[in-house]
Amino acid sequence: MKKARLPLSLVTLAFSSQLYADDLSELTGATDMVWLVTASALVFLMQAGFALLESGMSRTKNSLNVVMKNYMDVCIGTLIFWALGYGFMFGSNPSGLIGTDLFLLNESDPTSYGTLLFQTMFAATAVTIASGAMAERTRFDAYLIGAIIITAIIYPIFGSWVWNADGWLAKMGFIDFAGSTVVHSVGAWCALAGVIILGPRLGRFDRQGKPRELRGHNLTFVALGGFILWFGWFGFNGGSTLSASADIGLINLNTQLAAAAGACATMILSVIMRKPILLTDTINGSLAGLVAITAGCASMLPAYAVLTGAIGGVICTLGGKLMLKMHLDDVVGAVSVHGFAGAWGTLAAGIFFTGNMFDSKLITVQLIGIAACFIWTFCCALIMYFIIDVLMGLRAPAQHEQRGLDLSEHAEIGYPEFNTGNIAYTAERANQMDLQR
Amino acid sequence: MKKARLPLSLVTLAFSSQLYADDLSELTGATDMVWLVTASALVFLMQAGFALLESGMSRTKNSLNVVMKNYMDVCIGTLIFWALGYGFMFGSNPSGLIGTDLFLLNESDPTSYGTLLFQTMFAATAVTIASGAMAERTRFDAYLIGAIIITAIIYPIFGSWVWNADGWLAKMGFIDFAGSTVVHSVGAWCALAGVIILGPRLGRFDRQGKPRELRGHNLTFVALGGFILWFGWFGFNGGSTLSASADIGLINLNTQLAAAAGACATMILSVIMRKPILLTDTINGSLAGLVAITAGCASMLPAYAVLTGAIGGVICTLGGKLMLKMHLDDVVGAVSVHGFAGAWGTLAAGIFFTGNMFDSKLITVQLIGIAACFIWTFCCALIMYFIIDVLMGLRAPAQHEQRGLDLSEHAEIGYPEFNTGNIAYTAERANQMDLQR
Amino acid sequence: MKKARLPLSLVTLAFSSQLYADDLSELTGATDMVWLVTASALVFLMQAGFALLESGMSRTKNSLNVVMKNYMDVCIGTLIFWALGYGFMFGSNPSGLIGTDLFLLNESDPTSYGTLLFQTMFAATAVTIASGAMAERTRFDAYLIGAIIITAIIYPIFGSWVWNADGWLAKMGFIDFAGSTVVHSVGAWCALAGVIILGPRLGRFDRQGKPRELRGHNLTFVALGGFILWFGWFGFNGGSTLSASADIGLINLNTQLAAAAGACATMILSVIMRKPILLTDTINGSLAGLVAITAGCASMLPAYAVLTGAIGGVICTLGGKLMLKMHLDDVVGAVSVHGFAGAWGTLAAGIFFTGNMFDSKLITVQLIGIAACFIWTFCCALIMYFIIDVLMGLRAPAQHEQRGLDLSEHAEIGYPEFNTGNIAYTAERANQMDLQR
Repeated sequence: MKKARLPLSLVTLAFSSQLYADDLSELTGATDMVWLVTASALVFLMQAGFALLESGMSRTKNSLNVVMKNYMDVCIGTLIFWALGYGFMFGSNPSGLIGTDLFLLNESDPTSYGTLLFQTMFAATAVTIASGAMAERTRFDAYLIGAIIITAIIYPIFGSWVWNADGWLAKMGFIDFAGSTVVHSVGAWCALAGVIILGPRLGRFDRQGKPRELRGHNLTFVALGGFILWFGWFGFNGGSTLSASADIGLINLNTQLAAAAGACATMILSVIMRKPILLTDTINGSLAGLVAITAGCASMLPAYAVLTGAIGGVICTLGGKLMLKMHLDDVVGAVSVHGFAGAWGTLAAGIFFTGNMFDSKLITVQLIGIAACFIWTFCCALIMYFIIDVLMGLRAPAQHEQRGLDLSEHAEIGYPEFNTGNIAYTAERANQMDLQR
Repeated sequence: MKKARLPLSLVTLAFSSQLYADDLSELTGATDMVWLVTASALVFLMQAGFALLESGMSRTKNSLNVVMKNYMDVCIGTLIFWALGYGFMFGSNPSGLIGTDLFLLNESDPTSYGTLLFQTMFAATAVTIASGAMAERTRFDAYLIGAIIITAIIYPIFGSWVWNADGWLAKMGFIDFAGSTVVHSVGAWCALAGVIILGPRLGRFDRQGKPRELRGHNLTFVALGGFILWFGWFGFNGGSTLSASADIGLINLNTQLAAAAGACATMILSVIMRKPILLTDTINGSLAGLVAITAGCASMLPAYAVLTGAIGGVICTLGGKLMLKMHLDDVVGAVSVHGFAGAWGTLAAGIFFTGNMFDSKLITVQLIGIAACFIWTFCCALIMYFIIDVLMGLRAPAQHEQRGLDLSEHAEIGYPEFNTGNIAYTAERANQMDLQR
Repeated sequence: MKKARLPLSLVTLAFSSQLYADDLSELTGATDMVWLVTASALVFLMQAGFALLESGMSRTKNSLNVVMKNYMDVCIGTLIFWALGYGFMFGSNPSGLIGTDLFLLNESDPTSYGTLLFQTMFAATAVTIASGAMAERTRFDAYLIGAIIITAIIYPIFGSWVWNADGWLAKMGFIDFAGSTVVHSVGAWCALAGVIILGPRLGRFDRQGKPRELRGHNLTFVALGGFILWFGWFGFNGGSTLSASADIGLINLNTQLAAAAGACATMILSVIMRKPILLTDTINGSLAGLVAITAGCASMLPAYAVLTGAIGGVICTLGGKLMLKMHLDDVVGAVSVHGFAGAWGTLAAGIFFTGNMFDSKLITVQLIGIAACFIWTFCCALIMYFIIDVLMGLRAPAQHEQRGLDLSEHAEIGYPEFNTGNIAYTAERANQMDLQR
């Protein structure tokens, strides 16, 4: 700390006053950037969380393929979002429907660089959600083409409606602070479309249409993925202030409470339904709590965050059953976690808005936003995956699926020295274990 | 940076001066919060570190159960600490013995929200320590009830004595900057009580009382857990400033040096004792260094941090042998790492206090605090686990233990496709390998 | 926020003005430290990334040994760098060739403590690079002695030439912002020397000299390692500002773009060469992009970061083939990733320097720095490993290598319950799989 002499003339004072103002302004910019890049790094690590969660819930023979999809969609997505997505989402937006500049952002100011970095991580999160739902049967190249289109068009255009100051939903007052709808629901509705076009994995339903468990190969990875996602969420929600702020305290406290409540609610539901407390359900419950609080974490009190998270967990569990009833095979439960809980959370952000709770006008706006997201995203993604399927085939050939995509797509396997005998497992042991429940 | 014109009247100057003061005050609050939430996130991730370390040191058949205990104690603990623990620990405390308000904290100020978040992570750390020591034989529901009582009562009441400004130990000048005693010893003495009530795992000691190795199933997980815990400790110790400060440099440097010294001392001890350099010992050595420096990281010079960490590592190794001699089966060495090294570190914080080293008065206060922690925590936890054991059974039935808690408690297994043949392993291969040493 | 009354006398104003200046100065110091310790923590976690990547690319029988080398080199390295390395690197440096004080830094100022912490993490990164290249056949004790010498002498002396303000390369204007050369190339040239002295693993080349795949045992660990390294790099590059700054936005955006471009370029190269898209290649491609951007991340525009990263990825893939042709067995591709891509990135920092692109003088300086690093590091390391080899043996006995270093060096194995049958694998299954490509 440098000790300056006391300045005593009016001019000196004015000068030093100006100097402090400049220093303060520079320090504010530096502090904001420190938080923005820290939060960006946390959100980036969520990619590792998704990869572990999704790989752990898949069978050994596809574990590497799932990870590769996660790794490559963030790589390709980063370049595509820089080239196109960021402009469509945050460029000047006279129509309220789509941004029109800032493509290939190159010479710019520090804040823009930081914001692009942060938003890149968000785009990557939205895109990667689909990979888990569509795991174990989607072609690698077809998946990546889908990821490119989501990053370039589907995600940023919807995003421009909400997070671009001139977007039509933004102007209506739609609240989605950190993206229950913009990020998570967009990812989930893409996943839903993909799952519908793909159909279930071979052996997922028996001849009578009864679901059969195809167990994930490494539940420790699933739990580690859950922990890492939760960790990253502190950057996802907290960073959505886009600057350093004392408000992050409430935001991240709400995040923590909702995640905990989501898991606890799921566990209690299992106990009530006299079912075993599964690790996968519990972790999905906490993730559903996190997704649900994402929209309203900055604008509701802690008690409502607990409620929002708990209901999110319940919705996720029931949503998973609904998906199964409709014979939709979502390997990791992404549609329930990110879609159903995301829609609930967006609604809850309207219902529990501090200082204006249960306001029917606000709730209506929230419902419009939720519906707009579903209609835009689901329709686009359905058409997209349909066209991909017609042109090149979205689904891997049955022989590849049986053999595992690791070998057929990458000529590598995840654990070459371990005896897994997965074929024997699927047919017999799964049934055996189901009987034990 | 906006360039304002130079203001030259006295009133303008006074006005802009006031403006800068307000801006500065706001920026300070924002910066403090950025650090507090960053540190909170780091401490949260320690849960993943514990889960990996404990699961990796357990056998395959219990790997999922251990992870589930870690995942659920942070979830339940978060809600319980919000409802009860935080109030008992940090509420207004006229008696010096227990806090009396701030339960279910809802409408409050940003700093309180941030502090609650940070302290929640600390509570979760204290609680989760027991799960590893008691692994592979504790009932899931009984464990969770214990975790709830620790979070609600045992941990926060002791915490209120030290970290509540009105606590009786705080008033005596007891030094425990980041919780060698408040967090780690509390966790460890609970673990010790649990281990005593439970008794050793089946097969841990042979008929002559000689210990038999029951090896952990995945040592890469153990190492990853160690790295993640070390990483999180930079938030644990550094964040205990509770605000942004230049002092964090010394705090985290000491943290790094003590961890390194703990591992090196353990390795050298192995070499001296002509034993193989085990991964588990080495990692526990570094963790013991971390635990030991936690109390005094802000108030001793780097050279003493090295010494504190190194002695912590040695104490941990010798403590592990003592536990075995007493036929106490602590699966991960939690009592040695968090208890013995924690007590040493608390003492060291008194001995090496910068500017007042080897002060007998200070050392006496430290010893009182260490003793108070042991008496309160160990007695409470012993009674608690005893009552749980009588009412519902703390220990899983022998048949469940043999079969593995994953299947019996959760009807899931961690690695369904991998041939583990753990029964064959335990009986024969372990002995074979022991002969090779 | 405290609201002070408007101060209206000249003296009061001057006094409060001085007060704000002091507060602002203190806050600046605190903010800088928050970023420095956050970045240090991120760089620390890179050790976990290296451990997972290297262990995952090794065979089961050596997986624990690799992790132990990573864990112990950071532990020993921390103490050695504190004792010696930091002084040689950052001590007062009249000759421009080596620092001469600051050994065993003890009583000092906050900034120095923070800087030592951050630089310790960098030293640990440089040192650990060699462990992967030399995996599966290097004696544990010999490796650690090498690591000590690199940390104490080889790394800090070269570092003093560039990052000590009085270093001869620093005075020439050599640009290496975050250490493409200082950290990554130093690590890689040590690795190259080690690989040459060691010779290839048993069975790596057949009798005709054709390479044979010895596949890594866990590719999910490899991917997780890649994600964690990428995550840590935001602290590695961003933290090299050594203070909070708005510039971190560009730095970390460039980091993200280059990593993505490196992976995409590698993937495209695989497609062009009609080879399968391997996970290991892809992840090494992204790491090569990260290494390449490290030198110039603060001084080039995003478009050039994309180019730098993409070329880095290509160089890494081609470099790997070159190594194989020269019968050099680098288990994880460390020489290609950190050496070849690091040299390219250092050159690129000169070529694409914003405001002064393609300046021949600057490019010449960069080439001098790259050459100086190679000559100093490679010669020192070659002599060092040669002497170690003569005195105690650098390479493990063939019997130990066949049996695996886990058992022979540590009397532990990584996954005691899993049937791996690695001997059968190496001989037969690897060949089988190679035919399938």
